[in-house]
Amino acid sequence: MEETTKYTVIGAGHGGKAMAAHLALMGFPTTLYNRTPENVAIIKQRGGIDLESYHGGPRGFGRLALVTSDVAQALAKADVIMVVVPSSAHADVAKVCAPYLRNGQIIVLHPGRTCGAIEFVKVLRDNSCLADVTVAETETLIYASRSDGPAQARIFRIKEAVPLAALPAKRTAQVLEVLAPAYPEFIDGVNVLHTGLNNMGAIFHPVLTLLNAGRIESTHGEFQFYIDGATPSVARVLEAVDRERVTVAAALGIRARTAMEWLKLAYDTNGANLYEAIQNQPGYYGINAPATLHHRYLFEDIPMSLVPIAVLGQRYGVSVRAMDAIIRLACIIHQTDYWRRGRTLDKLGIEQLSVGEITRYVNDGRLD
Amino acid sequence: MEETTKYTVIGAGHGGKAMAAHLALMGFPTTLYNRTPENVAIIKQRGGIDLESYHGGPRGFGRLALVTSDVAQALAKADVIMVVVPSSAHADVAKVCAPYLRNGQIIVLHPGRTCGAIEFVKVLRDNSCLADVTVAETETLIYASRSDGPAQARIFRIKEAVPLAALPAKRTAQVLEVLAPAYPEFIDGVNVLHTGLNNMGAIFHPVLTLLNAGRIESTHGEFQFYIDGATPSVARVLEAVDRERVTVAAALGIRARTAMEWLKLAYDTNGANLYEAIQNQPGYYGINAPATLHHRYLFEDIPMSLVPIAVLGQRYGVSVRAMDAIIRLACIIHQTDYWRRGRTLDKLGIEQLSVGEITRYVNDGRLD
Repeated sequence: MEETTKYTVIGAGHGGKAMAAHLALMGFPTTLYNRTPENVAIIKQRGGIDLESYHGGPRGFGRLALVTSDVAQALAKADVIMVVVPSSAHADVAKVCAPYLRNGQIIVLHPGRTCGAIEFVKVLRDNSCLADVTVAETETLIYASRSDGPAQARIFRIKEAVPLAALPAKRTAQVLEVLAPAYPEFIDGVNVLHTGLNNMGAIFHPVLTLLNAGRIESTHGEFQFYIDGATPSVARVLEAVDRERVTVAAALGIRARTAMEWLKLAYDTNGANLYEAIQNQPGYYGINAPATLHHRYLFEDIPMSLVPIAVLGQRYGVSVRAMDAIIRLACIIHQTDYWRRGRTLDKLGIEQLSVGEITRYVNDGRLD
Repeated sequence: MEETTKYTVIGAGHGGKAMAAHLALMGFPTTLYNRTPENVAIIKQRGGIDLESYHGGPRGFGRLALVTSDVAQALAKADVIMVVVPSSAHADVAKVCAPYLRNGQIIVLHPGRTCGAIEFVKVLRDNSCLADVTVAETETLIYASRSDGPAQARIFRIKEAVPLAALPAKRTAQVLEVLAPAYPEFIDGVNVLHTGLNNMGAIFHPVLTLLNAGRIESTHGEFQFYIDGATPSVARVLEAVDRERVTVAAALGIRARTAMEWLKLAYDTNGANLYEAIQNQPGYYGINAPATLHHRYLFEDIPMSLVPIAVLGQRYGVSVRAMDAIIRLACIIHQTDYWRRGRTLDKLGIEQLSVGEITRYVNDGRLD
């Protein structure tokens, strides 16, 4: 019989703690790594994480094999490395891990946002990592979860079908097979352009945040983000940005889901237009807006989601003027240049590739 | 003794009715023209307009010399034609008036927004108007006024120093002299690039409206437009757009007032930044937001104010990316192309001019 898969979870935020505890409770030897020792001190002291969840879901004390801030230790025995950090930290994680990776290890970004795996592989290459590892990304975080204490996690929901793609896609089946005992919910996401261009947060979060900027800041987010925030006019901007995303995907030969199709698929929500579909989604009721504009809906979703989609559009001849307007406003409000800080084609190492070459790269891994 | 100046007021909205009644009460023979007979039927029947105003201000029944929807009649005896219509109608007014204008008549746009007089003169030329008329524009409407009935008007305030410029500017002094008996408040606005580039509504209205779009639509404007709407982040966008406007002016050799300087000048308001200056302006308290996004703050201020400033910037090498973002969002929300509908350089007839040539044109009137 094969040995049980050993997991290392990188990141001890809401998602990382839930995942580490859940994996441990499922019986997998699990290591938890966090760069900052203070963030995992209490987990280390207790030896694990208390997990609660929805009725019938996983619960109990997830005893961890190791809790560490030493990356060499964290990676030494891992078969699978689960990266559960904000996507703006993916490049740093890759850099830190590069010297310690071994042949055969699998790295999964939860989620990749847009072009996460491509960026991760590029940073490994730039840091002289010669190990034959497989980097994969999911389309969304499998958990809806929250951590209410230093060694606590609570899972609200485990999503049922989460697309995952390896880079190259020819290794996706193998990754799914390794993960299946823990996560039968992962399904074939085709390739990392698919998972990255089906990033719905890229559309919803920045547009809703910016076209409600004054209200967020003057009420500290005391209104329903989707229900009050997605008015007919705001929804028209959502549709325009979404149309650009789907067109960028089409330019790369990919049929991405529209936001309308996604609402139908994920929540069985219908409507004559995006405004109606959002208003018809019961799950959106009661979700408040962010309390401030210094929120990942801008500082993560702009550079790691919207910028890579927009630069792919610019590279392959798609007008992305609505995205440009949204990115520009975020740059002004945060007084930074997200066009530079974001995932640009040079940072991804794909600025010279034709559509055919980028397709071959994500499917077969050949970058020549 | 010279004959009393005869006025014709074009437009019977809030401002037009106030102006016509006020002029009549000051003793000037005044004609009121409105394209749609129904809009002035009751005024015509009564022979004038009831004017009320602030304590000590003008009041009484302003008996009009003529109320008409016949433009030939309206213009026949006029010395001065006061155009008090939304700036989006300026081109139409010019077209309608072109055949009936006579040498020596003065036309004043209240206000021109940006490039109003330039557009007016271009439309007259395109419609074969050979009369030697003088077109001028003001920087803002001299009245704060409101009409609460078909033949009623109420003036809240008459502004104290309103810049006015003729096209060409060498005729400004002559226009001011003709207007002075009625309006000593008008002062020399240097030239029509000055008046047009000091258009503060171009900055405040679209940015505040769009970055509060969701709130306007979901509350029907039930919040304080400036006080709640101009939060620190929204004010940063205001500052960015304002900086672009002032830079466009500088590229044309003009020192435009910044929004901060304007708040200081108009209201003696100070602050470390635009956010503070707006919050320190007592006059902004209690002013609610528009009840809908179908409002002149977008459908007038985008094409007639922000677009001409932006196209001047593009023509003379100024980055106007913040303006572009704002215009783009308005295009999406109103599902129209304001870049085409707005005052573009070809519509203004100045697309071939160098900075030197445009300066000579607005100052001396030579377009060759």
